[in-house]
Amino acid sequence: MTEGMEYTERKVVYEEKMKTLQDKLQHLGSLVEASIAQTVEALKTQNLELAQAVIDGDDLIDDLEREIEERCLEVIATQQPMARDLRRVATLFKMTTDLERMADYATSIAKITLRIGDQPLIKPLVDIPRMALLSQKMVKQALDAYVREDVDLACAVGKDDDEVDNLFGQIFNELLIIMMENPKTITQATHLLFVGRWLERISDHATNIAEEVLFLVTGEKCSLNE
Amino acid sequence: MTEGMEYTERKVVYEEKMKTLQDKLQHLGSLVEASIAQTVEALKTQNLELAQAVIDGDDLIDDLEREIEERCLEVIATQQPMARDLRRVATLFKMTTDLERMADYATSIAKITLRIGDQPLIKPLVDIPRMALLSQKMVKQALDAYVREDVDLACAVGKDDDEVDNLFGQIFNELLIIMMENPKTITQATHLLFVGRWLERISDHATNIAEEVLFLVTGEKCSLNE
Repeated sequence: MTEGMEYTERKVVYEEKMKTLQDKLQHLGSLVEASIAQTVEALKTQNLELAQAVIDGDDLIDDLEREIEERCLEVIATQQPMARDLRRVATLFKMTTDLERMADYATSIAKITLRIGDQPLIKPLVDIPRMALLSQKMVKQALDAYVREDVDLACAVGKDDDEVDNLFGQIFNELLIIMMENPKTITQATHLLFVGRWLERISDHATNIAEEVLFLVTGEKCSLNE
Repeated sequence: MTEGMEYTERKVVYEEKMKTLQDKLQHLGSLVEASIAQTVEALKTQNLELAQAVIDGDDLIDDLEREIEERCLEVIATQQPMARDLRRVATLFKMTTDLERMADYATSIAKITLRIGDQPLIKPLVDIPRMALLSQKMVKQALDAYVREDVDLACAVGKDDDEVDNLFGQIFNELLIIMMENPKTITQATHLLFVGRWLERISDHATNIAEEVLFLVTGEKCSLNE
């Protein structure tokens, strides 16, 4: 067997393993998207059972994160990918961490929902669900950008991040006014402020992923937000 | 040359490269510690120049993060470490991300300081500097735990995290009372609430590092907080 053949065979196995890893990553992404959707739905409808389900579901996400990381290391150890192939695995490894952190924030929001309990909401939630929808879209697009190595799609994630930041600015100002007008709202308003911040952080993580994709494809470090 | 010798030589080079990586990691850690210390000092003394310096210094931290990541990939590609040695590099790679995120939070705090500007502080800051001191200690201990593979030290980081959480709970309650008593304080109080939260997140990242160290040493996944 020649060195060349060995290389080709190894490359085939590598690509198969990467395909499996990408599928798992997208599965993780869909769990995280669902977690974001459910946690905000639970908050909006004050569905405490759903909030608890989000918290309970976080273990599954942690397990999948760990599994993907293990498989990344296995691919590196057994296939010894070089240069760009190694970078592809490393990027996937990093993205997994970002996804897991997003799920942590979804859990933090669910805990706030449990704290608010059945107290009437101080305002109907409109911008918070909008932030959540945008964040979900960003997660999906960032992962698609990775799989397709699509620079334009990665840049689109950065644009949505700006919109999430604007929405958070709006929520922040609105909640400050509500608190000033009626100090009885302060406790819940600060809870809702944190919900907004956690959604903003979720979208930051999606942006981190998009930046990683850009670095992978272009070799240039860039900052998509601010 | 025998296979065995080749392995031994590779191992020697690997250990040298890991030593350099660990030194760089500790350098990154010390920059992050300084960043936490300075950002809270700037807030406490309303030193806007220092706050700006923290923001400006973040690029240096980002560059060092990227450099360490590149070197991790280089070690993997050229030394092809197996099993536990591979895991050591992977852990260092992950820790680097945590450190960079901590520095991001320090920057977020500096931005809040700039926003507060020269408005008088609504209260003398006592617990916030305490949280910052604990966080700095946690960063240092988590990195030392990695270098020494010290399980006890890693567990100590988890204990400090509980204390940071308690301090944040205190700050939260105190600020709520201040806001309720005087709605004019609301804007600044919410800023300070976020400062508390960012410090809590910084300590969460230190705890993540400690958990990674425990996983590296014991092979067991564990959760040090909550």
